[in-house]
Amino acid sequence: MKKLIAVSALIAACAVSAPAKIMTKTVIYKQGDATLEGFLAYDDAVTGKRPGVLVVHQWLGLTNYEKHRAEMLAQLGYVAFCADIYGQNSRPHNVQEAGAAAGKFKSDRRLLRARVNAGLDELKKNELVDPQRIAAIGYCCGGTTVVELALSGAELNGVVSFHGGLDAPNPADAKNIKCKVLALAGADDPFQKPEDLAAFESEMRDAKVDWQITFYGGAVHSFTQPDPGFVNPGAHYNEKADRRSWQAMKDFFAEIFK
Amino acid sequence: MKKLIAVSALIAACAVSAPAKIMTKTVIYKQGDATLEGFLAYDDAVTGKRPGVLVVHQWLGLTNYEKHRAEMLAQLGYVAFCADIYGQNSRPHNVQEAGAAAGKFKSDRRLLRARVNAGLDELKKNELVDPQRIAAIGYCCGGTTVVELALSGAELNGVVSFHGGLDAPNPADAKNIKCKVLALAGADDPFQKPEDLAAFESEMRDAKVDWQITFYGGAVHSFTQPDPGFVNPGAHYNEKADRRSWQAMKDFFAEIFK
Repeated sequence: MKKLIAVSALIAACAVSAPAKIMTKTVIYKQGDATLEGFLAYDDAVTGKRPGVLVVHQWLGLTNYEKHRAEMLAQLGYVAFCADIYGQNSRPHNVQEAGAAAGKFKSDRRLLRARVNAGLDELKKNELVDPQRIAAIGYCCGGTTVVELALSGAELNGVVSFHGGLDAPNPADAKNIKCKVLALAGADDPFQKPEDLAAFESEMRDAKVDWQITFYGGAVHSFTQPDPGFVNPGAHYNEKADRRSWQAMKDFFAEIFK
Repeated sequence: MKKLIAVSALIAACAVSAPAKIMTKTVIYKQGDATLEGFLAYDDAVTGKRPGVLVVHQWLGLTNYEKHRAEMLAQLGYVAFCADIYGQNSRPHNVQEAGAAAGKFKSDRRLLRARVNAGLDELKKNELVDPQRIAAIGYCCGGTTVVELALSGAELNGVVSFHGGLDAPNPADAKNIKCKVLALAGADDPFQKPEDLAAFESEMRDAKVDWQITFYGGAVHSFTQPDPGFVNPGAHYNEKADRRSWQAMKDFFAEIFK
């Protein structure tokens, strides 16, 4: 498509990127008396401080799914840190345990905010991270969690919720928000209640937050997860919505990390 | 951020793109007995057939605003063609005339579809255009128009509505849609009626169209237009929403023109 001009015998100094070398490690950290077990990923071929991205897990807790997302973020050049909200000794083995764990934090937003802020602090103090360029992303109840992180008044550049519940039990806290908010939702997600969406929109609007929301037609809950860990017609993978939402996140990062 | 390796004294054959040379011209064409005056833009430094993008104007008719968008599209490497929906002799001079012109086509969707399809045909027959890679974008009532183009069953890859009215007087026609649909809307657009949005969503959902919609917080009607040509608190420019929506369009094109 492009008109190309061949220039031969050019003597040039060329800059070549070294191949990515993704490093990962488990990180033990604390929130109050709780011991938490997070996961760090970064590209060892990148030098210097770089933006950091906190990854918050869905209701099954910190699984290989979030670790894979952290590795994908590391491949983009970011330091990615998967927070552990539930605690080192709380790893749900089935949907019943997952529901109980998620429910505990959903009904105790103060604790939820404390746990996610502990993860944020852990990310920010990493020597590879530029603490002025920080984002948080979350999946399902992790999406809810990153919005709570913003509502807590945390200092970061932006949060991205992927198919997160957007109920707003403390809408007045939106005045605390210091970052941009991007929500990516399935247009047919049966777990996303219209009244929650309306409350979220009002919360953002009333506090004049810089916010956006995209709805992907045909996508239900968990649209980014090839294996959501349970069978439910209201929750399954959607390759197009997965790809598009990842691109939307990348565009958002390009803007907030400028 | 990237680890760079300096390679000196490298003898290489480098490919260099020629600088863009944007060409524009007025194009007279017909729909039935009506004479229409469109506007074409392309980069003369690009060779070979390339994707074509139809641009549909807002209620003030084909103005410099749409021509500028066509030039921006040409700079991206596309052939852009601004359709003339109203006709060569219908160029509104004020909002009263604009309202009358837009109202005529809004209430006669059959004529609207005929006019926009005439523009599509004109674009497709351009010798620089790959007729298998076609999109249409539209602003305000032009956004409504590109959705009508999709509803008419036109053969193209995708349509993008920027702050377009999304009312759906003929929802059953969604079964005709052969392309992807992206709607980009102001979350605070007072001209976007909730019942129209709900009707649009139902229309898309029921026909299993590949559709998406993004709402930009803080954005009202005409958010892409620095000078909407009239003063109304419900319609003004929003730089962030303009930039973000243009990026969303570029991502959409990257997907549909693969």
